[in-house]
Amino acid sequence: MEKFIYAPEIAKLGHVALVSEDLEKSLWFFRDTIGLEETEVVDGVHYLRAWGDFEHHTLSITAGETSYIDHIGWRTKRREDVATFAKLLEDAGTDVRWVAAGEEVGQGEAVRFELPSGHRFELYYDMDKTPADPSRKSVLKNQTYKSWAKGVSPRRIDHVNLQTSHDNAEIVQYLQNALGFKLREYFVNPDDVQVASWLSVTNLVHDVAVISTPRSKAPNEMHHIAYWLDNAQDLLRAADILCESEVAFVGPGKHGISQAMYIYVKDPGSGLRLEIFTNGYLIFEPDWEPVKWSYEEYLKNGSAYWGDRRRDDVDREEQVKQLIKS
Amino acid sequence: MEKFIYAPEIAKLGHVALVSEDLEKSLWFFRDTIGLEETEVVDGVHYLRAWGDFEHHTLSITAGETSYIDHIGWRTKRREDVATFAKLLEDAGTDVRWVAAGEEVGQGEAVRFELPSGHRFELYYDMDKTPADPSRKSVLKNQTYKSWAKGVSPRRIDHVNLQTSHDNAEIVQYLQNALGFKLREYFVNPDDVQVASWLSVTNLVHDVAVISTPRSKAPNEMHHIAYWLDNAQDLLRAADILCESEVAFVGPGKHGISQAMYIYVKDPGSGLRLEIFTNGYLIFEPDWEPVKWSYEEYLKNGSAYWGDRRRDDVDREEQVKQLIKS
Amino acid sequence: MEKFIYAPEIAKLGHVALVSEDLEKSLWFFRDTIGLEETEVVDGVHYLRAWGDFEHHTLSITAGETSYIDHIGWRTKRREDVATFAKLLEDAGTDVRWVAAGEEVGQGEAVRFELPSGHRFELYYDMDKTPADPSRKSVLKNQTYKSWAKGVSPRRIDHVNLQTSHDNAEIVQYLQNALGFKLREYFVNPDDVQVASWLSVTNLVHDVAVISTPRSKAPNEMHHIAYWLDNAQDLLRAADILCESEVAFVGPGKHGISQAMYIYVKDPGSGLRLEIFTNGYLIFEPDWEPVKWSYEEYLKNGSAYWGDRRRDDVDREEQVKQLIKS
Amino acid sequence: MEKFIYAPEIAKLGHVALVSEDLEKSLWFFRDTIGLEETEVVDGVHYLRAWGDFEHHTLSITAGETSYIDHIGWRTKRREDVATFAKLLEDAGTDVRWVAAGEEVGQGEAVRFELPSGHRFELYYDMDKTPADPSRKSVLKNQTYKSWAKGVSPRRIDHVNLQTSHDNAEIVQYLQNALGFKLREYFVNPDDVQVASWLSVTNLVHDVAVISTPRSKAPNEMHHIAYWLDNAQDLLRAADILCESEVAFVGPGKHGISQAMYIYVKDPGSGLRLEIFTNGYLIFEPDWEPVKWSYEEYLKNGSAYWGDRRRDDVDREEQVKQLIKS
Repeated sequence: MEKFIYAPEIAKLGHVALVSEDLEKSLWFFRDTIGLEETEVVDGVHYLRAWGDFEHHTLSITAGETSYIDHIGWRTKRREDVATFAKLLEDAGTDVRWVAAGEEVGQGEAVRFELPSGHRFELYYDMDKTPADPSRKSVLKNQTYKSWAKGVSPRRIDHVNLQTSHDNAEIVQYLQNALGFKLREYFVNPDDVQVASWLSVTNLVHDVAVISTPRSKAPNEMHHIAYWLDNAQDLLRAADILCESEVAFVGPGKHGISQAMYIYVKDPGSGLRLEIFTNGYLIFEPDWEPVKWSYEEYLKNGSAYWGDRRRDDVDREEQVKQLIKS
Repeated sequence: MEKFIYAPEIAKLGHVALVSEDLEKSLWFFRDTIGLEETEVVDGVHYLRAWGDFEHHTLSITAGETSYIDHIGWRTKRREDVATFAKLLEDAGTDVRWVAAGEEVGQGEAVRFELPSGHRFELYYDMDKTPADPSRKSVLKNQTYKSWAKGVSPRRIDHVNLQTSHDNAEIVQYLQNALGFKLREYFVNPDDVQVASWLSVTNLVHDVAVISTPRSKAPNEMHHIAYWLDNAQDLLRAADILCESEVAFVGPGKHGISQAMYIYVKDPGSGLRLEIFTNGYLIFEPDWEPVKWSYEEYLKNGSAYWGDRRRDDVDREEQVKQLIKS
Repeated sequence: MEKFIYAPEIAKLGHVALVSEDLEKSLWFFRDTIGLEETEVVDGVHYLRAWGDFEHHTLSITAGETSYIDHIGWRTKRREDVATFAKLLEDAGTDVRWVAAGEEVGQGEAVRFELPSGHRFELYYDMDKTPADPSRKSVLKNQTYKSWAKGVSPRRIDHVNLQTSHDNAEIVQYLQNALGFKLREYFVNPDDVQVASWLSVTNLVHDVAVISTPRSKAPNEMHHIAYWLDNAQDLLRAADILCESEVAFVGPGKHGISQAMYIYVKDPGSGLRLEIFTNGYLIFEPDWEPVKWSYEEYLKNGSAYWGDRRRDDVDREEQVKQLIKS
Repeated sequence: MEKFIYAPEIAKLGHVALVSEDLEKSLWFFRDTIGLEETEVVDGVHYLRAWGDFEHHTLSITAGETSYIDHIGWRTKRREDVATFAKLLEDAGTDVRWVAAGEEVGQGEAVRFELPSGHRFELYYDMDKTPADPSRKSVLKNQTYKSWAKGVSPRRIDHVNLQTSHDNAEIVQYLQNALGFKLREYFVNPDDVQVASWLSVTNLVHDVAVISTPRSKAPNEMHHIAYWLDNAQDLLRAADILCESEVAFVGPGKHGISQAMYIYVKDPGSGLRLEIFTNGYLIFEPDWEPVKWSYEEYLKNGSAYWGDRRRDDVDREEQVKQLIKS
């Protein structure tokens, strides 16, 4: 089928690069309590991944003066898509910085750029599929590490959720038009303004979500990153582990939007919120009609379908009221 | 991105059309015991789907002299892909029959053709997204029916597994070259001949599998169709329900290949084997290297990683030995 | 061992007799949504039980002007214990009313009396072990009905929780001294006054709990009755079912005290709160030292170890503050 | 109630004393893979318990020339019951050996004696309730260790299953008459001879089972010991862990008798079979009628209700046939 010419495409969420103001605490949290595996440590950067991740890393943590997300890495579908995306983005007026192969350990040539909101994305194709250390390697040929080796033990990275003070629709249009994401679900405020959106390039309901709220002090904040567990029961076990580790969390509960069962817990080192979650549903329809939740529907079943919904010592409905004022 | 020209693509498995020599028993099994919902009955054809399926039907059952699979329906990614596929197939010497819109209830114009093995596939794009009857409708906007309404209650159709006396590699190459499927996992016999393969066009490990075995009396048999449940625990509940319904089954167990947890149970009406399953893993890598299981690896961890593996009153290892003689 | 003389003993919680001001709604809730089985209906009384209950009924519902608990039935260890208990109670100044065999369907001779708080208890020994209707009978010889036949499908009755404006310690001493219950866990208010207690005669952490709170308008209120499910996952399924049935509930969550995972949901007919729960722990030690939770410990881990803790539109910590004023 | 005179009673299964011909392997299995906690090591004896056990130990392991069970410890209901039992046993002609306080670490004065089959039992009342090391202590006041700290992580010891070449009914009568156990379930061979029995003194379906089979080379063999997990899902996780540890096992499956979900796995050091299990049902009825399973019923639903039933490379039905020849 050589005669066909393809648009560049994003294949999947790759990794999140976290800078933490308390590296030791962040490692205690992500590596020892959540149970991510450490591929290697190079120049002070800790490269982590879940037992079912295949690439060199899905989370990197390095020490910094303040905590922030340096960038979010996305893998393209074809090697040439990196350059094609770069050209299209530059043509559209976006600044693009090339990252040399190896500048990020395990990774080939890549480009970095910012969304209209200021969130920094990275596009790459080549990434080492580093095998696990023999002592931790799974007996299964299609799995990287032994499962259940320590802590909560999620299987794989799942999605990122961007928080912003920026206009929601504008970011969503950028994700759709420049990067090929498809809108899956969204909700609106009482004035029918789109304020939160779930988008994906895969069969997942979302690889990325965007939440617009005036609680954001900046346009490029992070609401959370998420790792996946296979079963609802695994979240209940996670709740026990987090209690025994004396880390506060919100959940378990089930969202109506995305149908995902969740626990939200903050890394005490960096303050980054982690969602450990499961269930949800997959979208296979090529003509998926984005599910719109009105404000009333959102409050009734869209947000917390059931379960614990406290958030950051702030009542959730309060959050929504703040949010819809934007 | 109008300048790009796309190859036709299959988006997803759509449905299976079953002819049963004992319609009443098949309805007792699929509708009342497994718990599929009946969208409607037209001209003696019962159109069924799971509570989380969006299309008009994912299984149709009609009465016949003997039991067989009439066809397996696949949805294309774009409307024009149906005609493009038809042309490419005809150019390659495959007979293609056009099916008029409405000939299959809920469905638009489609084409039917046979694999080299004789398995009949259908390609369509348009299909009604019939809403549920108000009394059975979910309170969630992104879900068709109330979940857990009756019986085993799977969420959605998942995959088909074709059994054949035909050469495995030839069918696999056809699925890859003519239809765009990607090979995910396979195993070989002691002579290093490929005898079973798992392929997908989605992020699922497989939308279709092909098992070559001399136990097949024909080249175009069906090993099983599969419906998905969200949690491993749901399979244990299914086991209780099937025991109480006095239907024999195999499982629960977990395959190493695909990492899926399974129960296999035969429709007593048609003899069609149903897999109810969960877990497994998703593939997001665009350059996925098919996982090859040698015969020894297949026997050790590939087939039944753990759990019950009896099959059809025939010892499983015996089956494999028969299979590898082909 | 004929030479031994035994004190009378309670063997187990038997049943709860509920009067509902909206019988139809209560039946919709307990029979159709929670999924209790109806043994029979006699003189307007509906006799219900869970699929794993062995006795004729564990819940009876009858229509009334107002909703209330008529009595809570307890089965004695030996037939003669009913009369021995009656004598000991009368000797201690308690009014005892004899209930003739058959006055409560399925039940032999019994006695009814009131706790110091006014909660009415019944003691009986003989009760029909009515087999299930053949069409609903389990294929297992040690199980009454097929499991998972409809709705939430709890296995068996578990405990009752009495709410009272009365002094907690006085009721607890009565349960210990007159009826042989053993104190398992309790918590105190900031003034070190015992305000809530969990007691049992079986290996369960509690067959009965007593919560003293000024929110009680009367000394003999009911906080909830509880039915048991085998697995934590079953509660998550129950949450889905209750949402689809549009019945509000609290949970899921896990108590530190008793380690039980819970959902609380009110019968919309009578207003009686039902706890559907699982997990917890068993006590086999004959010298069990009651676990005392200080007020601080209660707030931290004793009440809701994790999960959803909203209650009756009143913040839980508010409840506790009200409670400890008593 | 001082006027009452009580028969001596057994309150619960206490512990199993294992001698292993490969101590290191047994510790790798029970401590590191199953995940029991080590209370202390004294004079070469390793004292272990599960995270939810309260006593000093529920399993002790010491090195020996050959592997065997030294004794099975049972806790009495009252301190004086130890001496009363000793007198009754001696009066009935059983040899009783007194064990001084401290001879078994943590334990008070005890007696040891043999069943007619030669299985050695120990009766004790006093046993240290050793708190967990602070670093491993649970944040819950009613739980010994943090749960889920390592490996399979069962909650508590549950029961023992004695295998014997001896007559089943005779052992059962001894357990009933001399020790107060109640018969809960049993099955018979085609000649209607009782060959396997489940008995308890607690609300559990069984604290002890006795299986008579000619496969026993001696009258006092051990079929297995069992530890409890809270949820069915926990067994599926255990299956994954055991596969990754490359330890063969049987299961998961569900017995009809006792309704327990099981995995059977052998300690590679001593050859002792461990059952990790959950679910099952509790018996609260004081007049429980033992459930008798005929040979046909046993084969159909009594043994493996569903799931994996392979055993020791010997077909299960073969085992039964051997067994019933006795």
